[in-house]
Amino acid sequence: MTTRFDAPDDPALDAFYGQLAESELQPLWRQSGLMPGSPPIADVPFVWRGQTLRRLAQDAGKLVPIDRGGDRRVLALCNPGLGGLPYATQTLWGAVQYLGPGEVAPAHHHTPGALRFVLEGEGVWTLVDGDAVAMRPGDLVLTPSWAWHEHHNPGNEAMLWFDGLDIPLVRALDAVFYEDGPDEMTNRAVDVVSRSERRYAGGPGLVPVGPRAAVAHTPLMAYRREDTDRALSSLLEQEAGPHVAVRYADPTTGRDVMPTLRCEMHRLVPGGRTPTTRRVGSSVWVTYSGAARAVVDGTAYDLAAGDTLAVPSWAPLDFEAAEPTDLFCLCDAPVLEALGLARSTTLNSYQTVH
Amino acid sequence: MTTRFDAPDDPALDAFYGQLAESELQPLWRQSGLMPGSPPIADVPFVWRGQTLRRLAQDAGKLVPIDRGGDRRVLALCNPGLGGLPYATQTLWGAVQYLGPGEVAPAHHHTPGALRFVLEGEGVWTLVDGDAVAMRPGDLVLTPSWAWHEHHNPGNEAMLWFDGLDIPLVRALDAVFYEDGPDEMTNRAVDVVSRSERRYAGGPGLVPVGPRAAVAHTPLMAYRREDTDRALSSLLEQEAGPHVAVRYADPTTGRDVMPTLRCEMHRLVPGGRTPTTRRVGSSVWVTYSGAARAVVDGTAYDLAAGDTLAVPSWAPLDFEAAEPTDLFCLCDAPVLEALGLARSTTLNSYQTVH
Amino acid sequence: MTTRFDAPDDPALDAFYGQLAESELQPLWRQSGLMPGSPPIADVPFVWRGQTLRRLAQDAGKLVPIDRGGDRRVLALCNPGLGGLPYATQTLWGAVQYLGPGEVAPAHHHTPGALRFVLEGEGVWTLVDGDAVAMRPGDLVLTPSWAWHEHHNPGNEAMLWFDGLDIPLVRALDAVFYEDGPDEMTNRAVDVVSRSERRYAGGPGLVPVGPRAAVAHTPLMAYRREDTDRALSSLLEQEAGPHVAVRYADPTTGRDVMPTLRCEMHRLVPGGRTPTTRRVGSSVWVTYSGAARAVVDGTAYDLAAGDTLAVPSWAPLDFEAAEPTDLFCLCDAPVLEALGLARSTTLNSYQTVH
Amino acid sequence: MTTRFDAPDDPALDAFYGQLAESELQPLWRQSGLMPGSPPIADVPFVWRGQTLRRLAQDAGKLVPIDRGGDRRVLALCNPGLGGLPYATQTLWGAVQYLGPGEVAPAHHHTPGALRFVLEGEGVWTLVDGDAVAMRPGDLVLTPSWAWHEHHNPGNEAMLWFDGLDIPLVRALDAVFYEDGPDEMTNRAVDVVSRSERRYAGGPGLVPVGPRAAVAHTPLMAYRREDTDRALSSLLEQEAGPHVAVRYADPTTGRDVMPTLRCEMHRLVPGGRTPTTRRVGSSVWVTYSGAARAVVDGTAYDLAAGDTLAVPSWAPLDFEAAEPTDLFCLCDAPVLEALGLARSTTLNSYQTVH
Repeated sequence: MTTRFDAPDDPALDAFYGQLAESELQPLWRQSGLMPGSPPIADVPFVWRGQTLRRLAQDAGKLVPIDRGGDRRVLALCNPGLGGLPYATQTLWGAVQYLGPGEVAPAHHHTPGALRFVLEGEGVWTLVDGDAVAMRPGDLVLTPSWAWHEHHNPGNEAMLWFDGLDIPLVRALDAVFYEDGPDEMTNRAVDVVSRSERRYAGGPGLVPVGPRAAVAHTPLMAYRREDTDRALSSLLEQEAGPHVAVRYADPTTGRDVMPTLRCEMHRLVPGGRTPTTRRVGSSVWVTYSGAARAVVDGTAYDLAAGDTLAVPSWAPLDFEAAEPTDLFCLCDAPVLEALGLARSTTLNSYQTVH
Repeated sequence: MTTRFDAPDDPALDAFYGQLAESELQPLWRQSGLMPGSPPIADVPFVWRGQTLRRLAQDAGKLVPIDRGGDRRVLALCNPGLGGLPYATQTLWGAVQYLGPGEVAPAHHHTPGALRFVLEGEGVWTLVDGDAVAMRPGDLVLTPSWAWHEHHNPGNEAMLWFDGLDIPLVRALDAVFYEDGPDEMTNRAVDVVSRSERRYAGGPGLVPVGPRAAVAHTPLMAYRREDTDRALSSLLEQEAGPHVAVRYADPTTGRDVMPTLRCEMHRLVPGGRTPTTRRVGSSVWVTYSGAARAVVDGTAYDLAAGDTLAVPSWAPLDFEAAEPTDLFCLCDAPVLEALGLARSTTLNSYQTVH
Repeated sequence: MTTRFDAPDDPALDAFYGQLAESELQPLWRQSGLMPGSPPIADVPFVWRGQTLRRLAQDAGKLVPIDRGGDRRVLALCNPGLGGLPYATQTLWGAVQYLGPGEVAPAHHHTPGALRFVLEGEGVWTLVDGDAVAMRPGDLVLTPSWAWHEHHNPGNEAMLWFDGLDIPLVRALDAVFYEDGPDEMTNRAVDVVSRSERRYAGGPGLVPVGPRAAVAHTPLMAYRREDTDRALSSLLEQEAGPHVAVRYADPTTGRDVMPTLRCEMHRLVPGGRTPTTRRVGSSVWVTYSGAARAVVDGTAYDLAAGDTLAVPSWAPLDFEAAEPTDLFCLCDAPVLEALGLARSTTLNSYQTVH
Repeated sequence: MTTRFDAPDDPALDAFYGQLAESELQPLWRQSGLMPGSPPIADVPFVWRGQTLRRLAQDAGKLVPIDRGGDRRVLALCNPGLGGLPYATQTLWGAVQYLGPGEVAPAHHHTPGALRFVLEGEGVWTLVDGDAVAMRPGDLVLTPSWAWHEHHNPGNEAMLWFDGLDIPLVRALDAVFYEDGPDEMTNRAVDVVSRSERRYAGGPGLVPVGPRAAVAHTPLMAYRREDTDRALSSLLEQEAGPHVAVRYADPTTGRDVMPTLRCEMHRLVPGGRTPTTRRVGSSVWVTYSGAARAVVDGTAYDLAAGDTLAVPSWAPLDFEAAEPTDLFCLCDAPVLEALGLARSTTLNSYQTVH
């Protein structure tokens, strides 16, 4: 907003302001920054290095056994712009989670929706409302709002994954509910293929006859690396361009995996560069493989596998790949779109790096 | 409606009726059958035998070269209840189409939507708006409303397919438009994989980032046999029941392939029997493989591969399989649902066969 | 479609055609007119004169007491292009209904949806699912699909109204169900204002808090003349143009009053002329007041109050008013839109009248 | 979440925590309160008294001329639970605004959506995107997201109104944009009736024929007191209950006035009491007339005309009226519903007041 009225030295005004404060009121004209010309971008662009995340997660695995450390061995990404809040961006939670051989993260559920993008390891199962879903590198596994979930690792290998949640948003809406599950495992027998995949991952455009479960999220709980890889390869043949991307969608509606979260996988060919775009809403990018340079608001960040980048709302962004690169993207676009607040623009030329 | 008023011998009434007729009016009370208690079922249950269809299609191939016989070598299923109209049911067109080696069915487009379910043969391509789509047995290939399409057979083998269209409906709505395409082929070079499949068949729940084409139908023009087969097998493992079915859906919305036509593939295990159901709206069933007994309105029909069954609106229907059986189903359910006229019921016990 | 193959004198072909006929098959190449270049327009433009309709309805009132004449004293508009079918157009039923003083049209319900546009008279009530809805000239009163309805006239004056239904469409879909109601009246006590109006006609953009009834049609059963009159006057002040129109909408969704029927009221100022347009789908126009010249497919029809005009699909149409004129329009546009078949065009200049 | 792991005195852990902090990471197991069992309810129930608001607004009118005090003379409700933030609840902005005779609040626009509920005064006009909308007591006037708006008071009387906005939400989403308008008034000529009302307030269920503007909010900018009053009276006759309510809706879709804000008007008869309910999402209640006792989370608040009550998410709430009472309600329900987070429950018995 325009320059605010700054009160001169005026006893009557001072008294008046005192009365306002006593009455739990504030004058608009003494507030600055309430409505800036464009998003204030409290959160800042930031990169957490994959090597660091991995090392600290392993250290946590040694130092903080899961039976001492609460339900989950999770290291939350804390955007330096958010004053100590454990949020990757103003609306998104990002973290790495580490589950050692033989460990179990017990059942709970909560209204914030969660997703897991697997970085390394094999043999872990997540039970989602009783359905055992395997986790493997590059897979996206969902535990949507209010779904019971527990992770167990019956194997010999630790697993490291990226956790994405909408905690900051759901907290801002005062809509968090949480319950612990029963202590004992309800189902340790795991299927080769989850029930949700048997029903909803049979083939592109093929859905089971019968009513869809009345849920606000996708009924498909896992999207497999081999499928996204094939889909991206197929698009690349088609487009012959430097950059293709797929969105993870509800196979029964085409909508995003959750009403609050959008997931995409992007692929760049060596030398490929995306246009510089800015959009309302924030995002978190996990480098799955390859190497690329991101430029956010004029600053360059070189990304290697495992590196995770937070991009604030309305920050200009582009990527340029040094080698074949796959980037997993988590963002809040469905929220902005549902609320009539989505806005984006593609800049005419690339950003100047400063 | 209740018994209509039958005019007694009354000269005043006779004169009055004469005046009505002259004024292009009819008294409701002299009409019977306008609103029966339940659907009048003008069309009747009927089976066209696969062997007959195949033999006559081959005969047509010899007797009526496609350059003599108009655009298409099509034998239309004529439901005996419809007084000579070339319709499979009151709302659905069904036919077999035969394209010999080296033949081409030239380009045209029309507002009725069409689909092809391939029965036998290899090597035929359908160009849909310039996109070359391969056809193989068990595939569903779409040429939706107003899409340009032409078929060509560069190979050595004839192809036989089932054609399903919504011609009766679109005619009842006075909404038919038709145009011939250019005589010369626009594109004889065929891709290994169609553009529509490269974009939309990458994997279950994976859609390309970017705006969807503003069309009322699915953007995916082909659904492959291997995908439906795998999806049905997967469902069968999951359900462990005698009967599973998948619906062919728009991968970007989950809606039916066209606003007027629903397609499904059903699989029964040997001895498996479906419940007896009746629903508003008609259907055509093509036996893709196996052998089953259909009971429609109390009459049994034994179906072998290639046999095609018309089921009228509201006729009780069930299937019982003698061996593993796959049935392709085409119906008008999206129309009834969109217009608030859908209704179905499952009968408590199986039909008595008379 | 292009010129059909006309079989030369060929015994083999003759034999083949014989076999096809025996097998309930027809060759496409011997069918003409199946898919014309544009809608075939079986129905023709036609006007039923208000004076005639009124006189014959009154005659029917004398000659055919409602207890002799079945449930309803209805004279159906029979489009001369439809070979004797009692339909106003290929998809729409139109009729006049006459209910004398003291008469009752007993309860029934059916899946075809019905609406009443009142032409003259006072004091009639229609019970819609037990809700007593008053009828007055210029009102639109609905009895949607499967709603129980009965009309009673406790007053001293006859009432004449226009009936619009989707019977041709629902019959084409084999979706007609019909049941008679109980003989005795369920509710003769009538409210001053119907329950549906108390809930849904409180004011523009105001809807009751609480769940909406799960019906496919509007929950508001009556749209009053004074409201449409005021809305049109208000639009006319705003637009200052020669022609304004309102659509009758579901106040809770903005959708059409029924999934199959759209209703509009058009107002023209003296000398005002609408552009010439053609659209897929047919319509019936009832002249409520004033006088106008309609030009349909190049032929002029002078319309006075009560005159009713049938306009076939895709026929060019415009109106020119000689005096302030209100025209009620019933059409099937929601069907064409839902099925992806809507198409319209405005011609650059007015039609030449021939 | 369950009890967090509290680190014992362990140098290795201390070092580890130091490394986490350096790497902008936080361990989940040291965070408490991140996901409480039910909404944390940072904001508290609170009442701002109408008399105080009025008096302080008048004082501001004397002390802070609008040309000294920035664009708007606004006193923002500051919920005492929110640590000094000028928000009525965690997602809603509430305020009173005061515009003296002859004053003008100049044009600006912003992505937060705003609404005005008029408390007292006559003669003020708000220009919304160039459309002059009159403001009178009890009216709801909208200036949705990104609509240009300016207020001017050409009369002799001051006006006081309640301002409701979604600022806290839009800020939490980093989606605020703001621009000042030109200094000179673009349109000082005011119509008797706004263009938006001429088009969209003609009558219940009547919408202009033609395409709707492609906006995410209602196209109707004003809902008049006489309409809500009549709608509530009409519902009260119908329901004969102690409590009725209408929702302000987009007349073309039935959706809420904005994607982020729901408005309702509630009426209680003397002695009438609402059930005790709790729902996710917060609300602000403005007592328009009458007197009622609200019980929020067990505490009673006696409300007189002009009193404004903030109700946090998930707080049990009921009202009991001492006299005929109208309450205006603003809430964030559309957000919770769009994001799949809506939840509500009605308690079996009334709250115990403590």
